[in-house]
Amino acid sequence: MAGCTGYAGGEVLRLAAAHPELTIGNLTAHSNAGTKLGEHLPNLPQLADREVLDTTPDNLAGHDVVFLALPHGASAPIAAELGADTLVIDCGADFRLIDPAQWTKFYGSEHAGTWPYGLPELPGQRAKLAATKQIAVPGCYPTNVTLSLLPALTHGLITGQDITVAAASGTSGAGKAAKPHLLGSELFNSMSAYGVGGMHRHVPEILQNLSLLGATDPTVSFTPMLAPMSRGILAVVTAPISGVGAADVRAAYADSYADEPFCRLLPPGQWPASKSVLGSNGFQVQVTVDEAAGRLVAVGVLDNLTKGTAGGAIQSMNLALGLPETTGLSAIGVAP
Amino acid sequence: MAGCTGYAGGEVLRLAAAHPELTIGNLTAHSNAGTKLGEHLPNLPQLADREVLDTTPDNLAGHDVVFLALPHGASAPIAAELGADTLVIDCGADFRLIDPAQWTKFYGSEHAGTWPYGLPELPGQRAKLAATKQIAVPGCYPTNVTLSLLPALTHGLITGQDITVAAASGTSGAGKAAKPHLLGSELFNSMSAYGVGGMHRHVPEILQNLSLLGATDPTVSFTPMLAPMSRGILAVVTAPISGVGAADVRAAYADSYADEPFCRLLPPGQWPASKSVLGSNGFQVQVTVDEAAGRLVAVGVLDNLTKGTAGGAIQSMNLALGLPETTGLSAIGVAP
Amino acid sequence: MAGCTGYAGGEVLRLAAAHPELTIGNLTAHSNAGTKLGEHLPNLPQLADREVLDTTPDNLAGHDVVFLALPHGASAPIAAELGADTLVIDCGADFRLIDPAQWTKFYGSEHAGTWPYGLPELPGQRAKLAATKQIAVPGCYPTNVTLSLLPALTHGLITGQDITVAAASGTSGAGKAAKPHLLGSELFNSMSAYGVGGMHRHVPEILQNLSLLGATDPTVSFTPMLAPMSRGILAVVTAPISGVGAADVRAAYADSYADEPFCRLLPPGQWPASKSVLGSNGFQVQVTVDEAAGRLVAVGVLDNLTKGTAGGAIQSMNLALGLPETTGLSAIGVAP
Amino acid sequence: MAGCTGYAGGEVLRLAAAHPELTIGNLTAHSNAGTKLGEHLPNLPQLADREVLDTTPDNLAGHDVVFLALPHGASAPIAAELGADTLVIDCGADFRLIDPAQWTKFYGSEHAGTWPYGLPELPGQRAKLAATKQIAVPGCYPTNVTLSLLPALTHGLITGQDITVAAASGTSGAGKAAKPHLLGSELFNSMSAYGVGGMHRHVPEILQNLSLLGATDPTVSFTPMLAPMSRGILAVVTAPISGVGAADVRAAYADSYADEPFCRLLPPGQWPASKSVLGSNGFQVQVTVDEAAGRLVAVGVLDNLTKGTAGGAIQSMNLALGLPETTGLSAIGVAP
Repeated sequence: MAGCTGYAGGEVLRLAAAHPELTIGNLTAHSNAGTKLGEHLPNLPQLADREVLDTTPDNLAGHDVVFLALPHGASAPIAAELGADTLVIDCGADFRLIDPAQWTKFYGSEHAGTWPYGLPELPGQRAKLAATKQIAVPGCYPTNVTLSLLPALTHGLITGQDITVAAASGTSGAGKAAKPHLLGSELFNSMSAYGVGGMHRHVPEILQNLSLLGATDPTVSFTPMLAPMSRGILAVVTAPISGVGAADVRAAYADSYADEPFCRLLPPGQWPASKSVLGSNGFQVQVTVDEAAGRLVAVGVLDNLTKGTAGGAIQSMNLALGLPETTGLSAIGVAP
Repeated sequence: MAGCTGYAGGEVLRLAAAHPELTIGNLTAHSNAGTKLGEHLPNLPQLADREVLDTTPDNLAGHDVVFLALPHGASAPIAAELGADTLVIDCGADFRLIDPAQWTKFYGSEHAGTWPYGLPELPGQRAKLAATKQIAVPGCYPTNVTLSLLPALTHGLITGQDITVAAASGTSGAGKAAKPHLLGSELFNSMSAYGVGGMHRHVPEILQNLSLLGATDPTVSFTPMLAPMSRGILAVVTAPISGVGAADVRAAYADSYADEPFCRLLPPGQWPASKSVLGSNGFQVQVTVDEAAGRLVAVGVLDNLTKGTAGGAIQSMNLALGLPETTGLSAIGVAP
Repeated sequence: MAGCTGYAGGEVLRLAAAHPELTIGNLTAHSNAGTKLGEHLPNLPQLADREVLDTTPDNLAGHDVVFLALPHGASAPIAAELGADTLVIDCGADFRLIDPAQWTKFYGSEHAGTWPYGLPELPGQRAKLAATKQIAVPGCYPTNVTLSLLPALTHGLITGQDITVAAASGTSGAGKAAKPHLLGSELFNSMSAYGVGGMHRHVPEILQNLSLLGATDPTVSFTPMLAPMSRGILAVVTAPISGVGAADVRAAYADSYADEPFCRLLPPGQWPASKSVLGSNGFQVQVTVDEAAGRLVAVGVLDNLTKGTAGGAIQSMNLALGLPETTGLSAIGVAP
Repeated sequence: MAGCTGYAGGEVLRLAAAHPELTIGNLTAHSNAGTKLGEHLPNLPQLADREVLDTTPDNLAGHDVVFLALPHGASAPIAAELGADTLVIDCGADFRLIDPAQWTKFYGSEHAGTWPYGLPELPGQRAKLAATKQIAVPGCYPTNVTLSLLPALTHGLITGQDITVAAASGTSGAGKAAKPHLLGSELFNSMSAYGVGGMHRHVPEILQNLSLLGATDPTVSFTPMLAPMSRGILAVVTAPISGVGAADVRAAYADSYADEPFCRLLPPGQWPASKSVLGSNGFQVQVTVDEAAGRLVAVGVLDNLTKGTAGGAIQSMNLALGLPETTGLSAIGVAP
């Protein structure tokens, strides 16, 4: 895999090391090439002595599956060099968006293309993933927001317009590059907001998903926050609703997620905590209707590195390889 | 003061000990009566040997100023026994709401009355506080939300309808009573939501403030979150807006807070972090307009125990005593 | 299992749910009897609807393996009622100590007996565990300290006298009982010490282990600390040493742990972080000699709930059941 | 002051802004020259618009007091250019050590000299500080360790040999330079050790202080740890002791600290938490004797940025300026 020393790459390795059908091949990274993996990922003792190779097509050739966990824009040139019989799974954003104009607006470069989107819970998506050799892993926030609203949209309870999202993320979502505002000293005992006002690059991906779920001209006010924790996203999602009560909403969520192996609607009155799914591929959601405010309120939690990135990638890989979807994955969180 | 061993009471003492015009008199608490204060508040060495008395009218009599930091419903009977020339400052909710029906709906008991509201930044409020012997200290969330929207409402930029708030609070806001869900083990590395769907008792207080600021039939979808930190509230507040750009909104906030000693509009592009005001009476806010979503987005931070409770109480006390409003208070946060 | 709603019990369940050879039987607890498990352990979705039964011998009868995660003193009466063909694994302290006088001195009650000690890494211990139906799971601190010194003692590099230990633990080690000093508000951004001066109940267990490893008249100055995290113990262990250099010490540790599946000596220069083994059964250690101070310094990390309690319990269970020792366990930590 | 945008410099400014006898003059930094202070220190609103100047002698000339908070080795050349009537206070290590050989051994460069040491609690030190224009502010760990042992040494209860120290520090002690191991993602929910085995640069400073307090040939095994918090140091300090009981030790500490404005011996049985002194100039200590282990055990806490750096600097400055020693300082911590 490529980009093995970052947080997304490290999480792919953590899950791959425990996956019964995977053998870990070459590991590459750009700036850390030539070092031992154990310097970067001391939590993976059995891989500690592996040498980190440079991220080149040669070093990635000859594998059945290649995971790319690279900076935005770096996946496309690598992917073009890999053989057509290689399953390529891009954990970055390069191939998520359908509309090239949105890509250019938010990422400022030319669009590389669109790959099947690795969110199996989307209606009809499992069949697409079973038939592809290329998977675009969703962003962590979009996964949470999409799963928090999916039942309401597919059951026609909301329109998808005037959605508001405030989502608090653990700091691993910001990556491992050493920047002053990501120092522990800055983050302990503090909450902050960033990318406010529709600036975050996950906005077009969220809107795209709302459209796929049936919304017409969806809009979203999306505010991400950094929380003093390393993993996890809790999203507070609201949507205008009228004439539909909490019981009907609850029934829709129960219906949508009854057979989903990783999605769980909590019992009435129990609101989710992000630690319940820490380190797991689980997604937990609770929902109600605030009659006075005229809004549905859903709160969803997932681990941004697992269900939000690497776990979702493995889940989709399982489908593409014809394995049982849950192979090597668990919905059990490491709590407390 | 009454309720000295809880978090709100302890913060009143922390500030009072540094206030040049205050001498600390009797300290009372109910369940901790008979103990030394140092067992409960080791951060206040000069008061460590003070004995905690029982919370009775006798023990509170004879002071110029009495702070009440008691459970909801416990302030009214005590207050009734204190002399008319005593300045009584209630840090609880008993006297905040104007509408008895709202009180009964959210608190389930009979309404005790309404006292002047200790938020000096409200238009016209300083004069009322200068003339009273009874102050109802605002709730921590309502202080944040109100100050985050005040300029937009007083400048007529929003209507106050369809407001959404998602606010992450440090856990001291939940008090010092030992409950399993407030254990550190449950909270480290986790975000959770609670009181979702319009259930939180601060909802009617927020709506009351929006009305006082000019809103007609305001509504709010309010979702509180517990963040893994001891102090601080970051509130993400959105409101429908149309035909007004970010520059006009910014000008309104700059205008409202130009002369406020504790409120600060951050420079363009800088979004607030709750630690910037930790331990201080400061409030910091940033605001923008998300044109695509049609919403104003304001993010405000304060320390729930200081500006959100005890600092706001001292600020209002200063006004009621005829002291300079900033006496004994600071907008400097303890960061990092 | 008994005591399923506490932290130790919950961790046994987390691991048991992923263990390929275990089926989870009755779940009991005393004060939480009659509730659903999901209220207490939302991280275990597949067990959420399980009813919590009362902790009685009847409810625990008929299982091949029974885990006890009960308050000190509560295990013995339950264990006496279970059949001789049941493998009973006590996660509490009741059966750890050999010397009844030490038990009475530190626990203040009559000694219940001594069971084979569930630390497979002790010389000769695997054979004992393979032949028993009763296992006393070690304490979390003693596991860390013992493994941090084992190679030095078995290789005769230190005498075991004048050991000093300062060990920082996550707060889950203090259990789930709601006590004010364990509230998140008290713990965030703070380190504290407790049980200082040889008072902690793990002191006699540490000394017993040092003796088992060959020390004569060992002494230890043991200082536990509470760190602002939910899981993990980092122990700083020093011992007088003379005439032995860092390279010899390193060779001893490499020798002892070369074939241990869960113990890892880190490469030279890399010092352990507790998060490297979070949620795993791994133990990581680094060691050096401070020539100027005349002391060996070892730093060991483990997860107090996993290798320090429930993981160690499963590891020993595997041996007692004749399963491969690593079944259902991993040394991979959930980091970052 | 020089180095205003780092953590030590920022803390000097936080305290200086609240000091009644100081007016804040030029602010300089090297890499951040030309920016506004508010970008770096949003917790200091009244200084937000101040421009950061380059760190040159010209920009620092003409002030009565100059604080230097610069990287090791950078203070000496600047100090040489400042006038003899300027009070220069170096928060770095350049002028702390007496023995040039120790300096060169631990810092690898030529020794710049020795200035009066800014620890007023040392016997006879207040007179020296009252008569100097140059102050070397102690390191944060040495301040804690020295104050934790001072009474035992000055009362002749211990020899100062075979001391062990394990000290957990908040991460601000490691500075604001963005390094991967200081990222919040790495630090949340984790304890780690570093500089183990006598390698830390504070070792010679600790030994120097022990000697000044009467120890002959002192030795110390010093192990620093990084704790998941931004501020605070908790030090566990042990020393061999014989023939002296806990009561005698306690009496010595009570005697030494009875009149110290910032040092507090806690009541029997109460062990310190670092948050009790967060943001304050306080030092709290508890002490006992572990008879079985033959060691005195002292646990001391302070805020590494305040009493450990900037607060100690202001305290010494007050003495050098002839002000009351406590001016602008407080022993009240910001808790919870």
